[in-house]
Amino acid sequence: MNQQDSLLIRALRRQPTERTPVWFMRQAGRYLPGYQKIRSGLDFLELCKNPELASEVTVEPLEVLDVDAVIIFSDILVPLEAMGMGVEFGDRGPCMSDPLTGRDGIERLCIPDPVESTGFVMDVIRATHARVDGKVPVLGFAGAPWTLACYALEGSPSRTFAAAQRMVYESPSDLHLLMEKIADTVTAYLLAQVEAGANAIQLFDSWGGMLGHQAFEEFSLAYCRRILEGLDGCGVPRILFIRGAASHLHAIASMVDELGVEAVSLDEMTRPQHALEIFGHRCALQGNLPPQALFAPVDDLRSRVCDLLDVFTDHPGHIFNLGHGILPTTPVENVRAVVDEIRARS
Amino acid sequence: MNQQDSLLIRALRRQPTERTPVWFMRQAGRYLPGYQKIRSGLDFLELCKNPELASEVTVEPLEVLDVDAVIIFSDILVPLEAMGMGVEFGDRGPCMSDPLTGRDGIERLCIPDPVESTGFVMDVIRATHARVDGKVPVLGFAGAPWTLACYALEGSPSRTFAAAQRMVYESPSDLHLLMEKIADTVTAYLLAQVEAGANAIQLFDSWGGMLGHQAFEEFSLAYCRRILEGLDGCGVPRILFIRGAASHLHAIASMVDELGVEAVSLDEMTRPQHALEIFGHRCALQGNLPPQALFAPVDDLRSRVCDLLDVFTDHPGHIFNLGHGILPTTPVENVRAVVDEIRARS
Repeated sequence: MNQQDSLLIRALRRQPTERTPVWFMRQAGRYLPGYQKIRSGLDFLELCKNPELASEVTVEPLEVLDVDAVIIFSDILVPLEAMGMGVEFGDRGPCMSDPLTGRDGIERLCIPDPVESTGFVMDVIRATHARVDGKVPVLGFAGAPWTLACYALEGSPSRTFAAAQRMVYESPSDLHLLMEKIADTVTAYLLAQVEAGANAIQLFDSWGGMLGHQAFEEFSLAYCRRILEGLDGCGVPRILFIRGAASHLHAIASMVDELGVEAVSLDEMTRPQHALEIFGHRCALQGNLPPQALFAPVDDLRSRVCDLLDVFTDHPGHIFNLGHGILPTTPVENVRAVVDEIRARS
Repeated sequence: MNQQDSLLIRALRRQPTERTPVWFMRQAGRYLPGYQKIRSGLDFLELCKNPELASEVTVEPLEVLDVDAVIIFSDILVPLEAMGMGVEFGDRGPCMSDPLTGRDGIERLCIPDPVESTGFVMDVIRATHARVDGKVPVLGFAGAPWTLACYALEGSPSRTFAAAQRMVYESPSDLHLLMEKIADTVTAYLLAQVEAGANAIQLFDSWGGMLGHQAFEEFSLAYCRRILEGLDGCGVPRILFIRGAASHLHAIASMVDELGVEAVSLDEMTRPQHALEIFGHRCALQGNLPPQALFAPVDDLRSRVCDLLDVFTDHPGHIFNLGHGILPTTPVENVRAVVDEIRARS
């Protein structure tokens, strides 16, 4: 099938669909038995760099859950490694072996050629297409500059991201230099994914919501804008996900309008009714069941799914998803029940 | 001085003031030399239980910074310990030695008499009054039920609070039982603080903003309401601080209106102009300089302080504060520069 006619791509373009498409953030993950088996033999980063196995992990949710899209298995730190930073596999997942501490380190970072430095990601996209054989679209993705800067400065996920947050005020010009380099790297990286066959891309700013309201516009939104502008005319829909931005919907909507961004993904803190009011018919909306709701008794879970679908009745351009990634201990049968409920409503 | 006439209490009651009062969340903390000296000899919880030293730490910011209020030095876990849970001092501060795992543990928790079980907190309030000698009001505080439930279920601060978040969906009736017990404990605890001489109290829901939008109303807001209602008529102003609630201001404003809550403290993600529009003249507003802004060059910091004061010009009932607690490595001279700038504007 030409993926332009797929359920997901039509919904992203707000064209009529027979039913709501569904996929899940982090759907290729530890809650799946096939993933666990493959991961028991190699670490996260090794898996990312093995197109054969990474594509196998990528398509498992299609087979087990019957979702309407696959998203390539990869790590958001891949572009930072290509820029010249060391990435290692720590206790709590991938982290930076040598976080940046000053302007010197930032100046030393390069803006790499994405095919030369991260060609394995493009190989994963091609290998995934070979496996899905036209059944569903293949999504590419990247982390947004603020989220990647947090990693580059902090090393590993933190509750407060104190080093990155301090730099906003203490040395903003150094931070801007870092953000510019990351933004240009990520733009080229996503364009290469599209070139390799990604049918849509999602930009993740997982930690944008931690910024103060002024810093949010200056460091999260402005650099998402730079990337989304750089992707304008690339031919595939762009999905923007900024976690913790429920109070910034008006600012995001203005940008979406101006750049013609195709879709916004909502976290679970956002009232979908409110998002519909603000985004109206400007773009498609994706989301936003809380990932923890997948632990609810199945009847309760099904009724939450129906409530969410009801909000978007008569509004073309809803893609069912979570407000954040699937949690590692999620029961697979509950995820499957969500897909079944959505398919039953067609 | 009768504290009813103090700058802070007048601002909390939206009466005219000569200038904006200022204090800082976590102003008695590791960035201060006197605090560090006292803490080098004993751990956090020992210090909380020593009224002589806890009151000394409490008043240090008055001497060093010339702030307009002191807030008692204590720990938010104190009421959980009184309910029957073990609290210990871990690597990253106080944590629970035996987090709750099921309904049995919740049922075993008691609703303690605050004077019998936590009389040392009331002693800190009295000892602090003796030290400040009427110069400024003494604030009491407590953690809100959702934040305390996160600790009780998780053990220590976490980035995701997965156990507590899961319980929202997996066993909400058990969670409600826990929340009710905590809410009743905290209400009695705050009333005892008022009885002991607290001139105002602040309720902290530091992690309310992590909840999905429906769960926020059911588990964060509803239990803040229960406590604030229980304090109605206690004779001192109530300040509500829910961190991460910038997208919930309308819901908070309805509650504030209904209960006559005196003040809301804003985190740094909230646009103060927006908060003013929503809260209008319903209550006083406290906040909301980002704690990281205290690391900015002093000229830049002073100009941020002025910008924030400007927003509230002609609006009685602004209390200058941060959007969250002072960070441990904050330069004291920068905090002092903020106070000087505010005092210079009188």
